[in-house]
Amino acid sequence: MSARQRLADCGLSAGKKARLHRILYKHGLCNGTALFLPYDQGLEHGPRDFFADPVAADPRYIVRLALEGGFNGIVIQVGLAEKFYWDFAGEVPLILKLNGKTDIPSDARALSPLHASVEDAVRLGADAVGYTLYVGSPAQDADFAQYRKVREQAQRLGMPLIVWAYPRGEAVEHKGGKDSFYAVHYAARVASELGADMVKVNFPHPEKRVDVPAAYADEFSSQEAMDAVVQAANRTLVLVSGGSRTGDDVMFEKAHESMAAGATGLIFGRNIWQRDHDESLRFVERLRQILAKYPTP
Amino acid sequence: MSARQRLADCGLSAGKKARLHRILYKHGLCNGTALFLPYDQGLEHGPRDFFADPVAADPRYIVRLALEGGFNGIVIQVGLAEKFYWDFAGEVPLILKLNGKTDIPSDARALSPLHASVEDAVRLGADAVGYTLYVGSPAQDADFAQYRKVREQAQRLGMPLIVWAYPRGEAVEHKGGKDSFYAVHYAARVASELGADMVKVNFPHPEKRVDVPAAYADEFSSQEAMDAVVQAANRTLVLVSGGSRTGDDVMFEKAHESMAAGATGLIFGRNIWQRDHDESLRFVERLRQILAKYPTP
Amino acid sequence: MSARQRLADCGLSAGKKARLHRILYKHGLCNGTALFLPYDQGLEHGPRDFFADPVAADPRYIVRLALEGGFNGIVIQVGLAEKFYWDFAGEVPLILKLNGKTDIPSDARALSPLHASVEDAVRLGADAVGYTLYVGSPAQDADFAQYRKVREQAQRLGMPLIVWAYPRGEAVEHKGGKDSFYAVHYAARVASELGADMVKVNFPHPEKRVDVPAAYADEFSSQEAMDAVVQAANRTLVLVSGGSRTGDDVMFEKAHESMAAGATGLIFGRNIWQRDHDESLRFVERLRQILAKYPTP
Amino acid sequence: MSARQRLADCGLSAGKKARLHRILYKHGLCNGTALFLPYDQGLEHGPRDFFADPVAADPRYIVRLALEGGFNGIVIQVGLAEKFYWDFAGEVPLILKLNGKTDIPSDARALSPLHASVEDAVRLGADAVGYTLYVGSPAQDADFAQYRKVREQAQRLGMPLIVWAYPRGEAVEHKGGKDSFYAVHYAARVASELGADMVKVNFPHPEKRVDVPAAYADEFSSQEAMDAVVQAANRTLVLVSGGSRTGDDVMFEKAHESMAAGATGLIFGRNIWQRDHDESLRFVERLRQILAKYPTP
Amino acid sequence: MSARQRLADCGLSAGKKARLHRILYKHGLCNGTALFLPYDQGLEHGPRDFFADPVAADPRYIVRLALEGGFNGIVIQVGLAEKFYWDFAGEVPLILKLNGKTDIPSDARALSPLHASVEDAVRLGADAVGYTLYVGSPAQDADFAQYRKVREQAQRLGMPLIVWAYPRGEAVEHKGGKDSFYAVHYAARVASELGADMVKVNFPHPEKRVDVPAAYADEFSSQEAMDAVVQAANRTLVLVSGGSRTGDDVMFEKAHESMAAGATGLIFGRNIWQRDHDESLRFVERLRQILAKYPTP
Repeated sequence: MSARQRLADCGLSAGKKARLHRILYKHGLCNGTALFLPYDQGLEHGPRDFFADPVAADPRYIVRLALEGGFNGIVIQVGLAEKFYWDFAGEVPLILKLNGKTDIPSDARALSPLHASVEDAVRLGADAVGYTLYVGSPAQDADFAQYRKVREQAQRLGMPLIVWAYPRGEAVEHKGGKDSFYAVHYAARVASELGADMVKVNFPHPEKRVDVPAAYADEFSSQEAMDAVVQAANRTLVLVSGGSRTGDDVMFEKAHESMAAGATGLIFGRNIWQRDHDESLRFVERLRQILAKYPTP
Repeated sequence: MSARQRLADCGLSAGKKARLHRILYKHGLCNGTALFLPYDQGLEHGPRDFFADPVAADPRYIVRLALEGGFNGIVIQVGLAEKFYWDFAGEVPLILKLNGKTDIPSDARALSPLHASVEDAVRLGADAVGYTLYVGSPAQDADFAQYRKVREQAQRLGMPLIVWAYPRGEAVEHKGGKDSFYAVHYAARVASELGADMVKVNFPHPEKRVDVPAAYADEFSSQEAMDAVVQAANRTLVLVSGGSRTGDDVMFEKAHESMAAGATGLIFGRNIWQRDHDESLRFVERLRQILAKYPTP
Repeated sequence: MSARQRLADCGLSAGKKARLHRILYKHGLCNGTALFLPYDQGLEHGPRDFFADPVAADPRYIVRLALEGGFNGIVIQVGLAEKFYWDFAGEVPLILKLNGKTDIPSDARALSPLHASVEDAVRLGADAVGYTLYVGSPAQDADFAQYRKVREQAQRLGMPLIVWAYPRGEAVEHKGGKDSFYAVHYAARVASELGADMVKVNFPHPEKRVDVPAAYADEFSSQEAMDAVVQAANRTLVLVSGGSRTGDDVMFEKAHESMAAGATGLIFGRNIWQRDHDESLRFVERLRQILAKYPTP
Repeated sequence: MSARQRLADCGLSAGKKARLHRILYKHGLCNGTALFLPYDQGLEHGPRDFFADPVAADPRYIVRLALEGGFNGIVIQVGLAEKFYWDFAGEVPLILKLNGKTDIPSDARALSPLHASVEDAVRLGADAVGYTLYVGSPAQDADFAQYRKVREQAQRLGMPLIVWAYPRGEAVEHKGGKDSFYAVHYAARVASELGADMVKVNFPHPEKRVDVPAAYADEFSSQEAMDAVVQAANRTLVLVSGGSRTGDDVMFEKAHESMAAGATGLIFGRNIWQRDHDESLRFVERLRQILAKYPTP
Repeated sequence: MSARQRLADCGLSAGKKARLHRILYKHGLCNGTALFLPYDQGLEHGPRDFFADPVAADPRYIVRLALEGGFNGIVIQVGLAEKFYWDFAGEVPLILKLNGKTDIPSDARALSPLHASVEDAVRLGADAVGYTLYVGSPAQDADFAQYRKVREQAQRLGMPLIVWAYPRGEAVEHKGGKDSFYAVHYAARVASELGADMVKVNFPHPEKRVDVPAAYADEFSSQEAMDAVVQAANRTLVLVSGGSRTGDDVMFEKAHESMAAGATGLIFGRNIWQRDHDESLRFVERLRQILAKYPTP
C-alpha cells in the first residue's frame, strides 16, 4: 500500500504548490484530501442527466451544493464559469475543464477538443485546470498535440493540471474495454508520464479479463488493482471517480479502497446531484467521514 | 570494422559538443562510450512492464539505479522529468524523450506524437533530447513535419538530438519486418540523412531474408550487418538497444558485436530493471566491462 | 532547338542571380553549364545503393569526389550537410535538398515531406535549394502547400530554387507512366509555372505511348522530345538526370541530346559513384567534354 | 558566521540546479565550492591588461589555464565563446557574460549594455550567465529594464544567473565610494532581491566610513562585514572577486575570510593571469587549498 | 609576429566559413588574403569625396573598377546594392554595409544607425555584412543594442560579420584621440570580444602618446603596434584601412607592416578611386604584389 504523496514531495513549482495547497488544506476537510464536484455532464452527456433531480440543471444550485457540502472544488466548463463563478468567487475552488465533447458521435476515435485555455483559468481565478485524455484512442496524435499546449501553459503559469485519464476508442474495446484493470492502470501511468499533477481515474475492474494482455490475466483483488493504479501514478496525485450512479454501499466501498490505496481524493458528480438536496448532503457527509480517516500531513 | 567517431570529427556545434562531452567523458566510464537507461516503457507499453520487479514502477528507484550503475544518462518522458529529476539534477545526465505513444492502437500507420519540446529539455537541464522516428510508416509526412521542428529547435539551442530509428508500419511488415538487416540498415541511414546526432537502433537480423529487397538476400554475418549499420550512420553516433529481455549471453554477445562495429554505446532498459536490484547491478557491471574495452580518445 | 538561357535573361533577383552565377561561372567548367552530384539516395532508396562501391557510403568520399571531378555543386540532405559540409565549405557549391522520403511505403499517393527550410540553406552557406514535386500525385494539394512556403522563402532570401519535377502516383501510372514524353514534358512545365529557377527532369521516352493522351501518340524522336521539354521550361533552367545506372554510351548520348536541346546541365549520381574511384573520374571527364561544347556566355 | 547554502535549499528549478550542480560538484574540487576564471577584461579595460604577461592576450592560453588549474568555470564574452569554446566544449563550464562595456567613457552614469542573450548561452552550451548590475547608478532604470529580460529568460530556460553587483556611479561616489561596506552590503542584497542565483561582490572595506550612511559609521571588522554581505545575500550564493592585482598575502587573507563567512567561492582573474604560467598555477594551488577547507555537502 | 589565422581555425559555422572561403580563395589572389573596395563615403562624407575624380560618383564605374582590379569584395550601402549589384551579381563579392551616418552632426556622441538588415544582405546575395561600432562613444549602450541584433542575425544566417571598429567620441578625444595605439588596440579587442568575424581598423599611431593610459606611454614601433593589434583580435581576421588619401609610399609601407603583422587584408577606397582610372589600377597592382607575399594556406 502506497502512502499518500505529500505536496512537498511532488516536484511542484511554487505556483502549482500554492494552488494545490489552497485546494487541499484550505477547503473541505483541510487535511490534504479532496472531494471534487464535477459538473460537466451537460456537455458530455446532455441535460438528460438532470432529469433525476431537475434543480440540478441550475448551475447556481450546484455551486451552492458544493459550498454546503464542503467540497474542495467544483469542476465546470468555461461557459458556466463565466456566468456563475463570479457569485461565489474564492468561496470554493474552481477547476476549469478545458476540453469536452458531446456523446453524440461514436467513441471509436474519441478526442475531446479544447474550448478554453489555461489563461482563461487564470483570468477566472481557477485553482486548477482539467483535461480529458482518451488513452489508447486512434486519435492520440491530435490528443497529444493539444494536451502538450495545455501542459506547457500550465507549467508556465504555475497552474495545477488534472488529467481525466480515460481509456477509450476501438482499440481499447478490443483489448478488454475501458474499465479493465489493464486499461485503468495504463491510463494512470500515461497521465503521470505526460506530466499531470493529478489524475482522475475510474475504479479498475480486475475481474474483466477477456482479451486483456497476459500480464492482467491473473486474479487480482480490487484493492490490489487500486494499489497498483496509485503506484503507477507515483507523484501524480490520484482522484477516483464515482462514474454513473450505482448503489451507495458499492460507492463507499470504492471510496474506502481508493483512499486506502493512497489516492488523494474522490470526484463524485451524478452520485451526488442525481438525488434530492438533503439526500445529497447526507451522501456527501458519508464520503467526508471516509476522507477524514486519511489525513496527509 | 569502423573506428568509433571522435566528437571533434562529428560536425557538432559548441553546445552539442559540450553536452555530448559531458555525457561521454564526465559520466559512466568517462572513456567516450555510453550506457543509457531508458525508462519510457510506462508510456510505450504500460506499467505491466514493471510486474517483473514492482519497485521498477517507482521512477525514484530507477534514477537511483542509474546513479549506482554509473550510467551515462537516463531517458524519461517530461512528466517524470518534471517530478523526479530535480532530486538528482546534474548527478546523471537527463535525456528528455520528446515524443511517445501507447501501444494500444495498431502500428500499421505508426506515429509517435510530440508531447514536449527542446525548450522543455533546456529548462529541465537535460543534456540531450530523444525522438522516435518510425521509418517506413505510411504516416511519414506527419512524422517528418514534427521531427523537423525538433531538429530545428535542437540546432538552434545546441541540444544533441538522439533519434530512435524504428522501422515500423504495414509497408515494413511487407518487406521483411522491423528487425531485418534491410530495415535496420535503412533506418540508421535515414537518421543520419535527417540530422540525428545519435541514432538508437535495434540489432539487425540478417537471417530474416523473406521479402527483403534483393540486395539483402545474400548471407551476412551479424557482425557484418552491424558493421554496415554503423557505417551507414557515419558521423551520427550509434547506440544499440537491448530490446525486450532475452538471455543474458545473447545480450553480451550483441553488445560486443555492436562495440566492435564502432557503436558508441548501449541503451538497455528492461534487460536491466526487470530483475532484482543486485542482479541488475551485476548485469550492468558486465556491460561496463565490455564498454571498457572500446575507449574513444 | 532552343538556345541555352543566359542568366541575365531569366528574370532573376540579384541574390538568385549572384548564387547561380557562382554555380555556373565560378565552378566546374566556368562556362555557364553545370554538372551536379546528387547524394540523397541514402534517404530515397536506402544504403543498399552503396553496395556497388562501399566507400560511397561515406559522405566525405563523395564530397571529395565532387571536388576532384570539378562538379558545379553537390546535392545533399540537411543531416549530411550539417556534419560534412563544414570541412569543404565554399570549395564546392552546396545545394540543400529540403524534402525527401524513404521508398518503403507505396508511391501511389507520393509526397516528399519537408525536413529542412530555406533558412537552413542560408545558414549552411548553400547556393541553392532542391524540392521534389511529385507532379500528378493524388497528394498534390499537400505538395503544393508545402512547395509554396519554400518558393516564398526562396524568393524572400534570394535563394535559387531547383525543382525535382517527378511525375509520380497512381494516376500517372494509368496515363503512360512516369518516363513518358507526356509526363516529363508536363512536369517540366509545371515547375516553370510554379516558379522554379531550375528544374531537374528525367530523360523523356517518346516511345512510351500506351495510355498517354492523344497529342503524344505520334512518333517523336528523343531529340524532339528533349527540345520540347526545354522549351516548356522556358526561363527555368533545365538539368537532366541520369537516373539509375545504365550503359555508359546511352548516358553520353542522353547528355548530348540534352545539351543540344538547350539544357543547362546534368545531374548524375549513381552513374558516377556506383563504380570505383578512378572509373568515376573517367566517366566525369567524358561528361565534361560534352558540357565544354555548350558554353553560355 | 553563516553556513554555506546547500543547492537543495536554494529554491532552484531543476535546470538551474542541474547546471549549478555540474559547476560545483563535477568540476574543480567537486566539493560545492567554486573557483572561477573571469576573462572579460579585454572588453572592460582593453588589452593593456595583458601587457603584464602577453600570452594572456590569447584566449586559448586562458582556457587551457582554466583546465590546468582545475577551475569550476571560465567567464567570457560571446565573441570569445563563439570562437574558442568549441575546442574545449564541456571540459570546463562556460559562464557567458551577457553585458559589458569599455572603460573609455565616464562611469558617472554607468550602464553595461547587453550584447548577448540567455539563448546564446544555451546554444553555446554554457552552464550559467553573467550580468553586471551597476547598483546605485543614475542609469538604474535602463539597467533594471534589460536585467529583467535576462532574469525572465534565465528563469524560462533553467539557466543560473550570476549577477556582478557593482556599486557604481556619481551617487555612489558621494556616499562613500564603491568599495565601502555600505555599498557592497547593499549591492549583495539588491542582487538577491532581484533574483540572482549567484552574486559576485568585491571585498567590502568597513574602514571606508567617510560619507556613508550612519548605520555604517561604526567600526566593523572585515570578517564582520563579509559575514553581513553573505547573510544579506541569503539563498543567493556569493562569489568574492579578487579585483585588480595586489599582494598575494592580502588575497589569501580575503579568500579565507570570504569562505569563512559562507561564500561559495572566488572569482580571480588578473591576480592569476598577470603573472607567468607556472606562478599562476602555484597561486591557484594556494586558493584551492583554502577552498578545500570549506566543503558543502 | 602572429601567423595569419586559417579559416579552419577561426571557430566559424559552415555558412560563415563557406562565404569567407569564397571571398578569400575564389576571388582576388585566391590565396587567403583580401583587398576590399569600400564605397560608402557618399553617405559618410558626402559626394564631395568624388570631386577628385568625378567618374567615381558613378557606382557602376566603381563596381567595374573592383572587377578590373581583382578585388575580393566591394562594400556598399543598401541603396547602391539594390540598384547596381544585379548587373554584376556573383562576379565580385558584395559586402553590405548595414549602418552609416552623415558627418554633419558632431561626433561627440557618435552612433551609426542601422538602415539595413542581415536578411537584406542574404536577399541581395552578399557574402558578408559590415557594421560600424564607435568604440568608446558615450552612445555605446544604443550601439551595443543594435549591434547585438546584427550579430544574432549574422550568427543565425551564417553570414560573416565585419566590424568597422572605430574609436570615436568625446571620451576618446580626451584620452589621446582616435588614431592612438591605445585606441586602435582597444577597438580591435572590443570587436573580437563582441563576436566580429573580421575587424577593420585604422593603422595605429604609437607616437600619439599625449593623454593615453600609462601602459601606452612607452615607445613602440609602428610594427610592434600593428603586431599587438592583430594579436588582440586573435581569431577575428584583421583588415587594415587606408583612410583618407595620403602619400603612396606611406600606404605601401603601412600595407607591408599590416600583412607582416598577420592581417588578412587591406581595405582601400579613397586612395584608389580618388585618382584617374589607370592610375587606380596601377596602385591596386602594387597592393596585390604586397598581398601575394603573404599567402595563407
